[in-house]
Amino acid sequence: MQQPVMTAAEVTEFLDRVFPQLRDGQSEIVEIGPMTARLRLPVTERNLRPGGTVSGPSMMSLADYAMYAVILGHIGPVALAVTTNLNINFLRKPGPSDIFAEAKLLKLGKRLAVGEVLITQPGLDGPVAHVTSTYSIPPRDA
Amino acid sequence: MQQPVMTAAEVTEFLDRVFPQLRDGQSEIVEIGPMTARLRLPVTERNLRPGGTVSGPSMMSLADYAMYAVILGHIGPVALAVTTNLNINFLRKPGPSDIFAEAKLLKLGKRLAVGEVLITQPGLDGPVAHVTSTYSIPPRDA
Amino acid sequence: MQQPVMTAAEVTEFLDRVFPQLRDGQSEIVEIGPMTARLRLPVTERNLRPGGTVSGPSMMSLADYAMYAVILGHIGPVALAVTTNLNINFLRKPGPSDIFAEAKLLKLGKRLAVGEVLITQPGLDGPVAHVTSTYSIPPRDA
Amino acid sequence: MQQPVMTAAEVTEFLDRVFPQLRDGQSEIVEIGPMTARLRLPVTERNLRPGGTVSGPSMMSLADYAMYAVILGHIGPVALAVTTNLNINFLRKPGPSDIFAEAKLLKLGKRLAVGEVLITQPGLDGPVAHVTSTYSIPPRDA
Repeated sequence: MQQPVMTAAEVTEFLDRVFPQLRDGQSEIVEIGPMTARLRLPVTERNLRPGGTVSGPSMMSLADYAMYAVILGHIGPVALAVTTNLNINFLRKPGPSDIFAEAKLLKLGKRLAVGEVLITQPGLDGPVAHVTSTYSIPPRDA
Repeated sequence: MQQPVMTAAEVTEFLDRVFPQLRDGQSEIVEIGPMTARLRLPVTERNLRPGGTVSGPSMMSLADYAMYAVILGHIGPVALAVTTNLNINFLRKPGPSDIFAEAKLLKLGKRLAVGEVLITQPGLDGPVAHVTSTYSIPPRDA
Repeated sequence: MQQPVMTAAEVTEFLDRVFPQLRDGQSEIVEIGPMTARLRLPVTERNLRPGGTVSGPSMMSLADYAMYAVILGHIGPVALAVTTNLNINFLRKPGPSDIFAEAKLLKLGKRLAVGEVLITQPGLDGPVAHVTSTYSIPPRDA
Repeated sequence: MQQPVMTAAEVTEFLDRVFPQLRDGQSEIVEIGPMTARLRLPVTERNLRPGGTVSGPSMMSLADYAMYAVILGHIGPVALAVTTNLNINFLRKPGPSDIFAEAKLLKLGKRLAVGEVLITQPGLDGPVAHVTSTYSIPPRDA
């Protein structure tokens, strides 16, 4: 099991400095563990849809950011990884409160990283959404 | 080939009234045709990433909205369809200008609608992204 | 956590009787648990590719069959569910020996069932493939 | 628009020689055009399911083979490409007759090739299935 090379605070500080638009001042990286990351989206009015549910694009953004966080946390701050594929299944309507992303790397190769992200909300009897995503990792110096 | 039952203006007016958050004042439904819809995202600073490219979440939101528009345009304003699956492949980095979505319904069933959306940008030598998506359609009265 | 209503032996007997082509005399349902199923594909010459790896279509067939088994195991032998979506990420090349499928239902709704399947092979340092799949469940009598 | 470097006959001859298991003596490459390939699956008893419809795994195998054919047809016979992702949406039940695959490359990059495949059957009022797939292309000598 590969160990992370950056903490949640280090990844957050790096992304806020280099990609401020990515986080949009909203998602929080709670923890980075071996091949995993946990994030929280503090849900506000702009994330909601009529009926008081969290919007699909809010979940897709959170999942994409979670994948980015878990990859950076394991390859370090220099790499410029880009999403090549994201597949999301929406499972249950969340209520109007914070949602969480549990990201897990399934593969961290030299050229491709593949992971899954479970979107959850405390109090629900199952996950809100399930995501798989692939990132392309640029060539790194030996 | 099924004909649309609403025009682009009618779908826009309906969505702006019922789901103002959906459009977020940004994407424009340009045209609805038989089993198709064409949308435009007027790209602004908040859609950009470092290097001047359009963000992935902006494209995912646009594609989801395009699917919603083409489905409503063919089943009418009463239905409450919800996304169940969205799969996106990112193909080329767009520049910092408007992007378009060409949505096409592959199937409009009683319970599920499936479509594909090509994200394009004038001047590029191929599509920016390709999306397939499924919506669940609620039971309708006979 | 929903409990299964059929055992592995009951699902196998039912499928062999009603859908003999599905199993093709090859995959074995090892166990059905709460929202889960475990299957084994005894790999033979016809599942292999040059270099001695298991073919992608063999894995896709196994994953599809695993989803079918876990759904039947939880809704009973009468329903006729059909696959509507299957998404597979190939992660590592397996060697020329048996592979396993660990299926888990993420949602078992009235109309749609969504699950994930991990394809594994003992001795590898990570999964061979990851699958998410959606089945449409026909209306059932009350 | 990139032109193919091999004909349907050349790709068929190469694959039959190097990967005889891939084709399984069944699928036929009908034509390779600019960024496209057309294949035919002569449906036999072993591809059928109860009710006389073509099995999902038969369609997934055909789509995977079609992607392989269109990529080889454009990069030549030396490369060893491997599937990294395949996403399929099943749209309509085909009858017990031949099905066709229309593959189109959306991107042919140095490291990744992405394409879509439409599975069709003459006489149906829409496609049987829609597939998107990504192949990883190994480094090639300059």
